[in-house]
Amino acid sequence: MADAEPTQTPPAQEPTAEGADKGPSKSELKKRAKEAEKAKKAAEKAAKQAELEAQKAAAEMDFATEFYGKLPLNQSQTRPRRPRVQIAALNPNMDGETVLIRARVQTSRAQGNKMVFFNFRQRIDSVQGLLIVAPGKVSKQMAKWAAGLQMESIVLVEGVVKKSPEPIKSATVQDVEVHITQIHLVSGLETVLPFSVEDANRPENEIEANEEAQFKRVLLDTRLNNRVVDLRTQTNQAVFKLQHGIGHLFRDFLDGKGFIEIHSPKLQGAATESGASVFKVNYFKGNAFLAQSPQLAKQMAIAADFERVYEIGPVFRAEDSNTHRHMTEFIGLDLEMTIEEHYHEVLELLDGLFLHMFRELRKQYATEIDTVRKAFPADEFKWREGPEGTLKLSFKEAVDLLVEDGVPREVLDDINTENEKRLGRIVRAKYDTDYFIIDKFPMELRPFYTMPDPNDPTLSNSYDFFMRGEEILSGAQRVHDPVLLAEKMREKGIDPASMSSYLDAFKLGCPPHGGGGIGLERVLMLFLKLNNIRRASLFPRDPKRLEP
Amino acid sequence: MADAEPTQTPPAQEPTAEGADKGPSKSELKKRAKEAEKAKKAAEKAAKQAELEAQKAAAEMDFATEFYGKLPLNQSQTRPRRPRVQIAALNPNMDGETVLIRARVQTSRAQGNKMVFFNFRQRIDSVQGLLIVAPGKVSKQMAKWAAGLQMESIVLVEGVVKKSPEPIKSATVQDVEVHITQIHLVSGLETVLPFSVEDANRPENEIEANEEAQFKRVLLDTRLNNRVVDLRTQTNQAVFKLQHGIGHLFRDFLDGKGFIEIHSPKLQGAATESGASVFKVNYFKGNAFLAQSPQLAKQMAIAADFERVYEIGPVFRAEDSNTHRHMTEFIGLDLEMTIEEHYHEVLELLDGLFLHMFRELRKQYATEIDTVRKAFPADEFKWREGPEGTLKLSFKEAVDLLVEDGVPREVLDDINTENEKRLGRIVRAKYDTDYFIIDKFPMELRPFYTMPDPNDPTLSNSYDFFMRGEEILSGAQRVHDPVLLAEKMREKGIDPASMSSYLDAFKLGCPPHGGGGIGLERVLMLFLKLNNIRRASLFPRDPKRLEP
Repeated sequence: MADAEPTQTPPAQEPTAEGADKGPSKSELKKRAKEAEKAKKAAEKAAKQAELEAQKAAAEMDFATEFYGKLPLNQSQTRPRRPRVQIAALNPNMDGETVLIRARVQTSRAQGNKMVFFNFRQRIDSVQGLLIVAPGKVSKQMAKWAAGLQMESIVLVEGVVKKSPEPIKSATVQDVEVHITQIHLVSGLETVLPFSVEDANRPENEIEANEEAQFKRVLLDTRLNNRVVDLRTQTNQAVFKLQHGIGHLFRDFLDGKGFIEIHSPKLQGAATESGASVFKVNYFKGNAFLAQSPQLAKQMAIAADFERVYEIGPVFRAEDSNTHRHMTEFIGLDLEMTIEEHYHEVLELLDGLFLHMFRELRKQYATEIDTVRKAFPADEFKWREGPEGTLKLSFKEAVDLLVEDGVPREVLDDINTENEKRLGRIVRAKYDTDYFIIDKFPMELRPFYTMPDPNDPTLSNSYDFFMRGEEILSGAQRVHDPVLLAEKMREKGIDPASMSSYLDAFKLGCPPHGGGGIGLERVLMLFLKLNNIRRASLFPRDPKRLEP
Repeated sequence: MADAEPTQTPPAQEPTAEGADKGPSKSELKKRAKEAEKAKKAAEKAAKQAELEAQKAAAEMDFATEFYGKLPLNQSQTRPRRPRVQIAALNPNMDGETVLIRARVQTSRAQGNKMVFFNFRQRIDSVQGLLIVAPGKVSKQMAKWAAGLQMESIVLVEGVVKKSPEPIKSATVQDVEVHITQIHLVSGLETVLPFSVEDANRPENEIEANEEAQFKRVLLDTRLNNRVVDLRTQTNQAVFKLQHGIGHLFRDFLDGKGFIEIHSPKLQGAATESGASVFKVNYFKGNAFLAQSPQLAKQMAIAADFERVYEIGPVFRAEDSNTHRHMTEFIGLDLEMTIEEHYHEVLELLDGLFLHMFRELRKQYATEIDTVRKAFPADEFKWREGPEGTLKLSFKEAVDLLVEDGVPREVLDDINTENEKRLGRIVRAKYDTDYFIIDKFPMELRPFYTMPDPNDPTLSNSYDFFMRGEEILSGAQRVHDPVLLAEKMREKGIDPASMSSYLDAFKLGCPPHGGGGIGLERVLMLFLKLNNIRRASLFPRDPKRLEP
């Protein structure tokens, strides 16, 4: 506030004591006073101007004094508070506005030595930038420097938004372009780009249709070895926005139904569940095991009266298989709830959850779905709406459909992956849906904690949910009676004593309950038809991959 | 619909052929017709009644035919669709209504042989139930059976809501009680209760004040060994509702700021970060390591252009320490974001996040906070609101405060746990806040990836956040320049080659960025003053505890 005080200027001439009686005339005094006033105002103006200049200088301290060049390393030296604009926010109403944008250089192309075209990228958005040599504003040298910027450099660009006379097809923002007045390098590359983001973003069918055009095909392994670059494609930016969306919608729905989120430990004292496929951890002087699922913990949370719980967290499977749909670590969306009367209360809640996710993904993430579809062309994911509701088959009905289709009944004690896919095709043709439920699995196919069917002990109160012919959820009513539970353990060859703290939870009184576990990456892969589960995981893990 | 068809009744008397000419009189015929009509109606009524009875019988098939007793094991035999009422929803406006409630028997007390008082519990709610012997309705036998129900049994109760003449202090619902007409056992106990939930829920100060009353004190270890029972206390039901709340508010705030949720792998190919305190996993024929934090992955997500990311997930620390605030597995609330100009952009966003959490916890979870405070009496958590904002000290200022308070400066190169707590007390006394930030930590106290201060390389662009004198967040601007990063690695004795896929991410161009990691259980513990971090974890893990 001290700065705002007017500067004190001395009077133009101080009257001396000896000249007081021979003083200047009244008009002369008036004139001097006026001049003094004028000088004071000029000084004030100059001070204000200086202050503005100082502010402006401070505001530009983090820019090079030139219009282009490499910025010093950002160590938070200054904070001029000049707002950056998001590419997605650019629109024709901003015509003529000067904006500041930080973006990647996806491509640059010089036209003669007077013009450079850029494609600037942020997440799934891109805009065209144009640098035109103009005397006193943009030098030839500046254009040359800018044209030489490596792909994937991060730049800070100042430019003027201009309406585009015709749609710019190479960018997602098609109705404006940015006429560059300054361009600075924020972060360059210190290594060779393994592939261009442009190439990595190109759809497979476009590559196939242009074999002779020498479009580079970027193979999955190359992508995963250089995942940081691969993730920058607009496709992947959209894929992981959708992954975020699925998690968000999962919680959103369940929060509204009285569930609470829990976090159960991944370090276990004993190999849980069936004991198979579990990673062993060196735990101080002993061993621990990584949880294969939060199954036991979430059931114990029910015995502890939480009534309705869910968990989103990693699950670990030490299965040495390298299929398109298996990883050693993935994200489980798990839930468990008490049952009042019948396990179909759970099945119906889960169905409502999936319908909520499908509907809201389509509604809230239409842009991202379209972005992914460009690279992975697929029939739109279909589900049944309206009073008929989701298709629910019994295991027996599913088997019958396969037999009708020509599969020998003898091989259908279980439905293997191949037949699951076949069933998906049959169901799609017959019922026009990519999403359905199979209920009443044979008891022998399910884990020990599954509640048997009350009328037929060879069947169980369990279900799987399917998307495009692949299982995405497995669930059931659980055995809450400790006597029956111990019996089922023994039937499956598990010593009840080896799982005593789990069994104890039921001995202490537990309400009837059921639930299910969803594979996050599977839902994402199948909704978008990404063909390989690794594409749906940020940094996938399989028996052969622990990096990056 | 077939059932609705009227039953055909034969006419009361069939006229015979031979008696046709000598037939009954007209009035006699009329009479017969009337009787036939009457019989038909009666039969219809009987049929309808039978149908209703059948429906009712079906609806009660999962009840014992008696008014009390043990229900058959719920294997989803039937689904009468009789809605259950939540105890929390009971209120005086329901006076006279018959309700069905599934609840735990927390306590029961017989008065003579004609009356039994119950305390029924669901989560944090409880209500009084009253069973009164009444001829033809409630038998003495029934009262005897009900009075004999074990504590923690789960029962299904049918009863009539009655306004209570005076507040019932032993229940959370104080203005009504339930007069029981039926009571059935859903799930009993097959073992001895290690302690009563009543005892476990009793506040420490109440126990101390009543030593001679022989209130049982339930020690923490006993609680954790029998966590399923311990979690049933109203205190713990509230604690984990609040844990859910913190996670929810964390995401809520960040979703609104353009962040997306990521899931990074917990299985790592190399020991991450400093290499210390990391668990080794047997990974097929080689080894893997459990991530100590999502630090490297979230920074790589920034290099991959996600701009603003957060993660909620387990982090693992192989530290052999058994303090009140350390666990081997806990939940990290992590975030990372790009910086435009200055790392205070991150610090300010984090501050906004905490203020949002504090405010909304108090607003949305007042009942739960009050419930916990009964068991853990504590001064209400204080923070500064209004234009002055959160207290921010530099590390140097924090040290000065401690020196002023009498701590020798020589020992303050770092601020140890004891001095952190002391600082918390000083700050509380001087600034009336339990929440503050320390900025500008010495570089030597921070990990290699911390950005040095531009003006003083012995300092860094890093900060810790504190609640009640304990650190709950640690964060910083990170080094995004690969040359400086490799230099800092070498300074800390790390071979850059050992972290090549991390270093590569920066060589491929990375924007300036910063972030922080929050310990979920610490925030919960300190907000509520639970005194031990284990109380804030569902199934805590420490060097000596892997069960339950």
